[in-house]
Amino acid sequence: MNFDSKMAQAGMGIRPAHTVFRGGQIVNVFTGEVYRADVAVENGMIVGIGSYAGEHVVDISGKILCPGFLDAHLHLESTLVTPSELVENAVKCGTTTYIVDPHESANVSGAAGIDYILEETEEVPANVYVMMPSCVPALPFEDNGCTFTAEEMKQYRNHPRVLGLGEVMDHISVIQAEPSMLEKLELFSDQVCDGHIMTTDEKQLSTYLAAGVRTNHECTTYAEAKQQCRLGMHIHVRQGSAARNLDALVSGLVAEGIDTSAWSFCTDDKHIEDIRREGHIDHCVRRAVELGMKPVDAIRMATHNTAQCYGLKQLGAVAPGYWADLVVLDGLDTLNVCAVYHHGKNVADFRAQPKLPADSPLRTSIHCAPVELEDFAHPVSDESRVIELIPGQLVTNDITAQLPQENGFFAPDETYSKLAVIERHRASGKMGVAAVRGFGIRGGAVASSVAHDSHNLSVIGDNDADMLLAIRELQRTGGGYTVVSGGKVLHTVPLPIMGLMSDAGFSEVQDTLAAMLEDVHRLGVPENIEPFILLSFLALPVIPTLRLTPRGLFDVTRMEFVEKQN
Amino acid sequence: MNFDSKMAQAGMGIRPAHTVFRGGQIVNVFTGEVYRADVAVENGMIVGIGSYAGEHVVDISGKILCPGFLDAHLHLESTLVTPSELVENAVKCGTTTYIVDPHESANVSGAAGIDYILEETEEVPANVYVMMPSCVPALPFEDNGCTFTAEEMKQYRNHPRVLGLGEVMDHISVIQAEPSMLEKLELFSDQVCDGHIMTTDEKQLSTYLAAGVRTNHECTTYAEAKQQCRLGMHIHVRQGSAARNLDALVSGLVAEGIDTSAWSFCTDDKHIEDIRREGHIDHCVRRAVELGMKPVDAIRMATHNTAQCYGLKQLGAVAPGYWADLVVLDGLDTLNVCAVYHHGKNVADFRAQPKLPADSPLRTSIHCAPVELEDFAHPVSDESRVIELIPGQLVTNDITAQLPQENGFFAPDETYSKLAVIERHRASGKMGVAAVRGFGIRGGAVASSVAHDSHNLSVIGDNDADMLLAIRELQRTGGGYTVVSGGKVLHTVPLPIMGLMSDAGFSEVQDTLAAMLEDVHRLGVPENIEPFILLSFLALPVIPTLRLTPRGLFDVTRMEFVEKQN
Repeated sequence: MNFDSKMAQAGMGIRPAHTVFRGGQIVNVFTGEVYRADVAVENGMIVGIGSYAGEHVVDISGKILCPGFLDAHLHLESTLVTPSELVENAVKCGTTTYIVDPHESANVSGAAGIDYILEETEEVPANVYVMMPSCVPALPFEDNGCTFTAEEMKQYRNHPRVLGLGEVMDHISVIQAEPSMLEKLELFSDQVCDGHIMTTDEKQLSTYLAAGVRTNHECTTYAEAKQQCRLGMHIHVRQGSAARNLDALVSGLVAEGIDTSAWSFCTDDKHIEDIRREGHIDHCVRRAVELGMKPVDAIRMATHNTAQCYGLKQLGAVAPGYWADLVVLDGLDTLNVCAVYHHGKNVADFRAQPKLPADSPLRTSIHCAPVELEDFAHPVSDESRVIELIPGQLVTNDITAQLPQENGFFAPDETYSKLAVIERHRASGKMGVAAVRGFGIRGGAVASSVAHDSHNLSVIGDNDADMLLAIRELQRTGGGYTVVSGGKVLHTVPLPIMGLMSDAGFSEVQDTLAAMLEDVHRLGVPENIEPFILLSFLALPVIPTLRLTPRGLFDVTRMEFVEKQN
Repeated sequence: MNFDSKMAQAGMGIRPAHTVFRGGQIVNVFTGEVYRADVAVENGMIVGIGSYAGEHVVDISGKILCPGFLDAHLHLESTLVTPSELVENAVKCGTTTYIVDPHESANVSGAAGIDYILEETEEVPANVYVMMPSCVPALPFEDNGCTFTAEEMKQYRNHPRVLGLGEVMDHISVIQAEPSMLEKLELFSDQVCDGHIMTTDEKQLSTYLAAGVRTNHECTTYAEAKQQCRLGMHIHVRQGSAARNLDALVSGLVAEGIDTSAWSFCTDDKHIEDIRREGHIDHCVRRAVELGMKPVDAIRMATHNTAQCYGLKQLGAVAPGYWADLVVLDGLDTLNVCAVYHHGKNVADFRAQPKLPADSPLRTSIHCAPVELEDFAHPVSDESRVIELIPGQLVTNDITAQLPQENGFFAPDETYSKLAVIERHRASGKMGVAAVRGFGIRGGAVASSVAHDSHNLSVIGDNDADMLLAIRELQRTGGGYTVVSGGKVLHTVPLPIMGLMSDAGFSEVQDTLAAMLEDVHRLGVPENIEPFILLSFLALPVIPTLRLTPRGLFDVTRMEFVEKQN
């Protein structure tokens, strides 16, 4: 937005501003104060703080006015709906800015997937910025849909909504100075390079930071986060659907009282129903305050700190020269969102309209080789390496166990379930099978085409027939989630856009998903396990400790395949 | 600097780092802590913090290691020596980064002057960044050497050492949305636009900030600074030779305890002898601590805060991925600088080498029409508007007084001195004459070719003969400072580079200047007046209240010439 004479006149009070917010107390992120002032808006931008007349006066007497929230790091695809539907929902929670890593889309469809995210967020009532996915594929041996190189990133280098390089998950390639990774870091060296690292090794952390990575959202303990903060890492405190690190990290901050200016909030991966239930970044603010953080500090973590981190000079503050992205709160103790404004306009009435044409190639992304019942047979002997789930966390344990068997083949029971991952981009026929402890499913199977980061088809169950049926259901719908039991499809959420997202409408997705969660828990899966998010991470070979890919079990600690599984 | 495998191996501890600083305590600007750690440096960049082996080990046992200081805003020309000589001196005080507005050079020589500053600082052991002078000339009716337009700035837009737009002194053109000013602000809207404003009017401040200006170094009281900080202004606390605002501002910060992350230090204009006497930004840190600020907070104001303000991602912290610009301090209580490193190298041995060729056109910048004795005659009657000096400040009072006279002409005495300003760029013959109260010179004259921002020739004295001789002396030397008494030139510092700088060497300038200060005070000028800096501001029509230009007396409050002076 260019500053013009109309804005100057509104700022000078020579003419009434287009909109004036009056009667509220503003949260000042610069001084930490909260005080009474009018906020004058012209052309969607704040042009004055003080005493102003307006053509439209919004009475916010008794309320608090704070900057719109920023989600410092998220994958829009994880919400299952289209990017514009996610924004439609989350913006009403006060999140007016999204720093998005479209690496799911890039893994399936490459640049076409990134273009989809950019186009779909062009007209939403929020600021959607995009980081260039840095690890597509996640590891060189991954079976994903596309390889996204530094050369391909160059076309996005000067896009006004591209802020830098997305989370560098492959930290080994950084510390080993692999040329293809250094090329990407160099390309975005004057912007922000996001990180993704889980280690307490001071030398690995130092080297990773020295290479130019500056943020991390993977800290699960305060000790880790503080160690990294000391080294100059900007800490994104993650509170998503599956990974919920806020309590641990914020409790530490409150206890120690260190400076929080290098700390932000992010959701990373948060399902739409969780956003509706508890909120988005506003939930992070409320929870942090419940844990003892000062409200203004929590609001800073949700606003100014993130804007500073990404060089977003006109976001994150209620001040002249900033966009009028504003959240009206009922009070600093309760912190409930009463109204949200983007560029000075109330977001309440926005309804997302799907944009992707019916004949887009992004709608036909499931390309599997034929799968038959016998492909699920899994021979075992003596001891096997088994993926053990840890409720509420993405990391898994790598255990060795004597699996239940019949005729030399793994026979799932209430303790051990069967997991299969099937390549779906090039119909290569690659398929991995392994055992999982702690899922507990009986008499059925759950399948998903969302499986970070390569998004092959994952299915977990206790019998091969239901597992096969679940895979065929996903082939039929062009991707999605499905629950199968006793030879019948109970429910399916089709996710036809790259096998990741639905444009059928949020309500339909939510209702079906709620029914599916009931299905799954009725089939024996513990209540503290979110089956679809869990399934979507079991094939990701960058999160410890043991994962399954179409090429077989992968030991993340050693960064190598488990040669012999049994 | 590109990250490479050698740096990765040093960071990982696989090979010894080129240099390791060992035994000291590091100041952590992120957490506010101070603790013991090794700092490993490779290729001039910090690659590791922790426990490291090095090819070269610098033992700093018992010492404190903090980031190199940044001067958030200065005019290199004001130090009288060449830019490289200024750096040679100030870098030894720990200032390893300079954010320079070369608007003196631009006012005399336009783009050629800016190129000189860039070239002269190419090889110094410090980071010298340049802001594009925004107000050249300072006001449309000024008689300066060049007009520097947005169009001319475009060639510098992508220069790696250009960070944005220099101090926007003409705030009226901003709040009135004048197209030529908005064009400049727009050109640098994704970088930093520095400010220069002195008002407490909330609407003027709001509008100025709404237009994109984000820093200010002109606050003289804490109340002003806090008001601006609330509105989103980054406050540069100025401590120069003449303008010394640190005590007032830091005392307020200490008393109120508000967040200091939007506060920095700058020198603006500081003479070389003052740098040698009390230091540079290190002096600001020591003085702030004397006033009660926590040492780490004072160091942050001198380092991280400034780097953040200007988006200098690799400066302002002792952390991996940051340049090894480091200051070794003797302790956090004393804060004396023991050693300084730029890109890992000790700066102690640097000696500046003048680069400007002897035949450069920048050396012949004094172009006056012939001046004769009678041109200094100043007719007066009844009451006259008089510039009244305020010791220790740049602002002046606008008073009306009955001047001493002989035969209808002003006859200076111990109370009222005569000031003349003569156009020197285009030999136009324009010349202003007025009276000044409080300078006290008797039996002599002082003249200067440094006169912000147009740098015409200024001379102040009590008799026309000495004033004429002083002007002729400056014509002879191609610019400079001179003191004349009783028909004789007592001392001259020639400043042949644009009439602003000397490349004769710092010692010579300093020795002569010291002798000149003695001369001037012996001639009756009070000890609390620094005559040359004062003289250099008496012609600047953007600082209140009354100024003299070649076109006559100018009322800065009304922004108009005083039509009838007597």
